Amino acid sequence: MAEHYLAVDGVRAYCEEIFRRHGFDDDACRQIVDVVLTADLYGIESHGIQRMQRYHDSLRRKLVDVNARPDVVYETPLSAVMEANRAMGQTTAYMAMRLAIDKAKQHGFGAVTVRNCNHYGIAGYYAKMAVNEDLMGGSSTNTEAIAIPTFGKQPMLGTSPLALGMPADPYDFLFDCATTVVPRGKIEIYGKRGLPLKPGWAADENGKSCLDAGHVLENINKKAFGGIFPIGGESVLTGSHKGYGLGIIAEIFTGILSGGDTSPHVKNGGMGDTSFGFFALDYGLFGDKASIRARVSALLQELRDSAKAEGHDRIYTHGELEMISHDEKLKSGIPAGDRTVEELISIGKDMGLNYADYVREVS
Amino acid sequence: MAEHYLAVDGVRAYCEEIFRRHGFDDDACRQIVDVVLTADLYGIESHGIQRMQRYHDSLRRKLVDVNARPDVVYETPLSAVMEANRAMGQTTAYMAMRLAIDKAKQHGFGAVTVRNCNHYGIAGYYAKMAVNEDLMGGSSTNTEAIAIPTFGKQPMLGTSPLALGMPADPYDFLFDCATTVVPRGKIEIYGKRGLPLKPGWAADENGKSCLDAGHVLENINKKAFGGIFPIGGESVLTGSHKGYGLGIIAEIFTGILSGGDTSPHVKNGGMGDTSFGFFALDYGLFGDKASIRARVSALLQELRDSAKAEGHDRIYTHGELEMISHDEKLKSGIPAGDRTVEELISIGKDMGLNYADYVREVS
Repeated sequence: MAEHYLAVDGVRAYCEEIFRRHGFDDDACRQIVDVVLTADLYGIESHGIQRMQRYHDSLRRKLVDVNARPDVVYETPLSAVMEANRAMGQTTAYMAMRLAIDKAKQHGFGAVTVRNCNHYGIAGYYAKMAVNEDLMGGSSTNTEAIAIPTFGKQPMLGTSPLALGMPADPYDFLFDCATTVVPRGKIEIYGKRGLPLKPGWAADENGKSCLDAGHVLENINKKAFGGIFPIGGESVLTGSHKGYGLGIIAEIFTGILSGGDTSPHVKNGGMGDTSFGFFALDYGLFGDKASIRARVSALLQELRDSAKAEGHDRIYTHGELEMISHDEKLKSGIPAGDRTVEELISIGKDMGLNYADYVREVS
Repeated sequence: MAEHYLAVDGVRAYCEEIFRRHGFDDDACRQIVDVVLTADLYGIESHGIQRMQRYHDSLRRKLVDVNARPDVVYETPLSAVMEANRAMGQTTAYMAMRLAIDKAKQHGFGAVTVRNCNHYGIAGYYAKMAVNEDLMGGSSTNTEAIAIPTFGKQPMLGTSPLALGMPADPYDFLFDCATTVVPRGKIEIYGKRGLPLKPGWAADENGKSCLDAGHVLENINKKAFGGIFPIGGESVLTGSHKGYGLGIIAEIFTGILSGGDTSPHVKNGGMGDTSFGFFALDYGLFGDKASIRARVSALLQELRDSAKAEGHDRIYTHGELEMISHDEKLKSGIPAGDRTVEELISIGKDMGLNYADYVREVS
């Protein structure tokens, strides 16, 4: 359980001020912090304010270039490729998705790839940007290699998420999933709690399923063989080749189509050489938008209303939990543990800011 | 093991003549039979000549309208929606993908959806049509509902495949996977052999994993609850929600964007009310094509060359096995069991054709 529930406005202003003092302009601060807080609001705490320490550290170590401006190095009416010049992930991704959205609004479809950038937060945020403009949207990023191919034992692909959004009522459809069976953070949580991993999550140095989280993480950290299995797990009998293929698709859409580094060549945890891919598609390309929107909303409602398995009383559609969580946490506050609050206080001190002047807890 | 190896040219001419006598013109015969034989050549026998009996029966029962011509009911420079009027799946899909390819060649991107059609064979065939024109290609179809949502027990989505192709050397990347953990055919094969299913493949009428193939198929046939789990299996711990989401994405790209029936409403095994989605994308939208093609080829080669898991001596990339199988079977012939050959002979008799005049076996 979280020990603190932070009112959203205060923590937003505080985090924005931290980035401002790192040298970002107002728009950039708003964009970065909105991605971070949206993760918390969606209930994806792994990508929320608990990452502020990491962003702060990488800015202080100049791994991210505050002054860098991404360049569009190739462009057509429907597409663009951006060289990020090691700029901040969120601001670059925001710019790229805006460009894809503008192209989709003008021509029906827009796709933009980005190379040499940094972590961009949750993939779904950018897909949702398109959804908020009544378009379909897609987003992906590669990462340092941590996933092993089916029948392999060497980390070759990223946990690279694929996100896809489609406007619907009352809940937009928002799919956002790592192409590995679990993200690295899940292995870490099980390790910290001393729990055995589930079979088919992670591989030892021989490429065989391994339940010892500590052993798996040690191998990952020392760049030995072993890693995380693709969606579908270890065996083709459970569909390992399907997740492996989705990982390649994410890599094509990011590292390949951007001219950037592919996951096997991404270094330093992806600092400065991560690639992204974005697209926006006007679903009006396929007829009357109100009718399409009504039809997809009906499909999602039918899924939610369909008969429940024994032991379950609810079926969700993708994005539903996130939208509900978002609206709830705007009132109840963002949950944070002691350690995250301590980190936020400490970051503020580094930057000459007093945490208590900004952040208040929801009682 | 197959009892017969049929020389490709002869079986092609024979099957084309069968469709010709059903009333299709030369182009249509060529298109239908090429899809069927490509499945066999790729090693996907479930979708090959063993389906000839089914096509023959549905034409005789007038479930497929030989004389129907699909209409383009909505069109933009980048997109089209086709009303198939219950025409043959392969000819309609061929026409739709050709249109998507033409649009991609002219504008960089083309997407075409189709409604009220019939089974189109292997999804990958149409993605490969785009690849053969040095484009990326995608293809999907919905099916009668057989997949249950995560936490559900009611069949709501299809086994709906997602196919994506990207040109590469020496093997094109060709991903083609059902969005369920296994296709229905796999359950049937395990049932016939009296083997227990793997956990997480199929659900009983309570939505719980069930290893009894006969019981699962009985439920499916009588439209009771239960069905096949999405990629990722039964539990969110193994990524069930990811496969479930991919199933929804397939449904959006087919039934929703075509204005056709969605899987919960598809009747008669999909005869006459199946929907498709296709896209073609010129990867030259992202820069020099030769360079992109070389980079993706290098990535795929790195994957194949990466370290092998204990007990495995080879790592494949998607499409590799299919391309190798294709070239081998052009020489060694298409494998067929006694029953398939008997069916082919019997179909010929129905249509006034002598099997032995056309088909010879490779010795």
